[in-house]
Amino acid sequence: MTTADVISSSTPSDWRPLDPQNTLYMDLPAGRVIIELNSEFAPHHAANIIALAREGYYNGTAIVRSQDNYVVQWADPDGKRPIKNAQKTVAAEFERTARGIPFTPLVDPDSYAPEIGFTDGFPMARDPKFGRAWLVHCYGMVGAGRDMDVDSGGGTELYVVTGQAPRHLDRNVTLVGRVVQGMELLSALPRGTGALGFYEKPEQRVPIKSIRVAADIPASQRTELEVLRTDTPTFTAYVEARRNRREEWFKVPAGHVDVCNVPIVVRSKH
Amino acid sequence: MTTADVISSSTPSDWRPLDPQNTLYMDLPAGRVIIELNSEFAPHHAANIIALAREGYYNGTAIVRSQDNYVVQWADPDGKRPIKNAQKTVAAEFERTARGIPFTPLVDPDSYAPEIGFTDGFPMARDPKFGRAWLVHCYGMVGAGRDMDVDSGGGTELYVVTGQAPRHLDRNVTLVGRVVQGMELLSALPRGTGALGFYEKPEQRVPIKSIRVAADIPASQRTELEVLRTDTPTFTAYVEARRNRREEWFKVPAGHVDVCNVPIVVRSKH
Repeated sequence: MTTADVISSSTPSDWRPLDPQNTLYMDLPAGRVIIELNSEFAPHHAANIIALAREGYYNGTAIVRSQDNYVVQWADPDGKRPIKNAQKTVAAEFERTARGIPFTPLVDPDSYAPEIGFTDGFPMARDPKFGRAWLVHCYGMVGAGRDMDVDSGGGTELYVVTGQAPRHLDRNVTLVGRVVQGMELLSALPRGTGALGFYEKPEQRVPIKSIRVAADIPASQRTELEVLRTDTPTFTAYVEARRNRREEWFKVPAGHVDVCNVPIVVRSKH
Repeated sequence: MTTADVISSSTPSDWRPLDPQNTLYMDLPAGRVIIELNSEFAPHHAANIIALAREGYYNGTAIVRSQDNYVVQWADPDGKRPIKNAQKTVAAEFERTARGIPFTPLVDPDSYAPEIGFTDGFPMARDPKFGRAWLVHCYGMVGAGRDMDVDSGGGTELYVVTGQAPRHLDRNVTLVGRVVQGMELLSALPRGTGALGFYEKPEQRVPIKSIRVAADIPASQRTELEVLRTDTPTFTAYVEARRNRREEWFKVPAGHVDVCNVPIVVRSKH
């Protein structure tokens, strides 16, 4: 079966809806980016980002950086915006116990981690020796920027991966979620010409009209999406269809796949 | 040592110049993209692309496709452009004998190939059992699009990888070279909204003013670049600095690296 075959023969129970309490809408002049937060791996960051969104912290901030084959980042350009109820920083959430975390392993070797696979719609690595688990930096994953101090992040500055998976960032910075719609509004932004891809002129920055929690928006105005579950036989078939492409064009099935080359499918709610 | 330390302590013999006979300048309205062809792995494609460039085939063609997290592609939009001396198609060059091919292996496991590493500034895989070698689809690699028939490519249609390495394309399509400068002129193009990221309206296409062989341009007008050699102790140190990042910001060195996460350094000729 091809990936298209797998998706078209899936059943409603193969999908889960996005939880509006855990979903962000980032509205840019060009359209809406939708981010699913991950409260299993970054509970304190996710809660803080929701608190920041609810007090309007992000409204009027901007995309300040676009580094080719790496990340796009947004923040308060002046860094002087007051915070009311949320926290400025949150302790690092780089990894957690693997206990209790559902895990669909990939059989293929990973260049970076002893075990690699998926958990509830996110790419994940696991170290059985130490019993630890962490989210990994695939395309579209969103993290909380930090300074030198590991506990200096917290969500006031966020970035999204726009290039080859920078897996060396794994366990060095807190991943908080992933973009589930509107990725092209971020990935195709002009690259900044300053160091690290920062925009050199204020007018090059892309204004962020607002970042809001989906639950705070009337249900009729929400974008209803659902995500392919990663703990089902359908997902196993989907991974296999990515490992060995059956479309007629392919002549040599790879027989393998990298975790970041298995995009988790998102669609409008059926 | 950090990667910056390695590069700054390199010596002139760690670098090789681009061969102007093997280098293409693609001039777009926004600037110049420079492509190094690989004649070891795709000798017939490289020769045909050079012949196409020399007869002016590409001048006035266009970028017709930009698919998010995948490829940007250029071609004659109407497919009716006559070919004078070059060939319309060239037999597939998906892989070759590994014999005689210099190879700097990576020690880290690869998700796709039994052996992975570098050859003369390009990422490469090797299968010792069958004695075969092939170039791999990392960010910035350029390939020759084809139809269903494996021998239907030839260089009239070319693509560049702009997202997570689509390694499932390895050995399914002929890689002909890589972009060594100007990648951001391609990677940041608006994504096409048609199927597979094709631009739906002709006016969305990006015109290609010309693609020329560097050797055909007066030396004074060339962009002189050099590439970090991949067969030196300096390169080994560079890879190690990517495997275990020593910059102060990093707290957990990865201890590993993916072949596509070792960008081959290019700089202005010293």
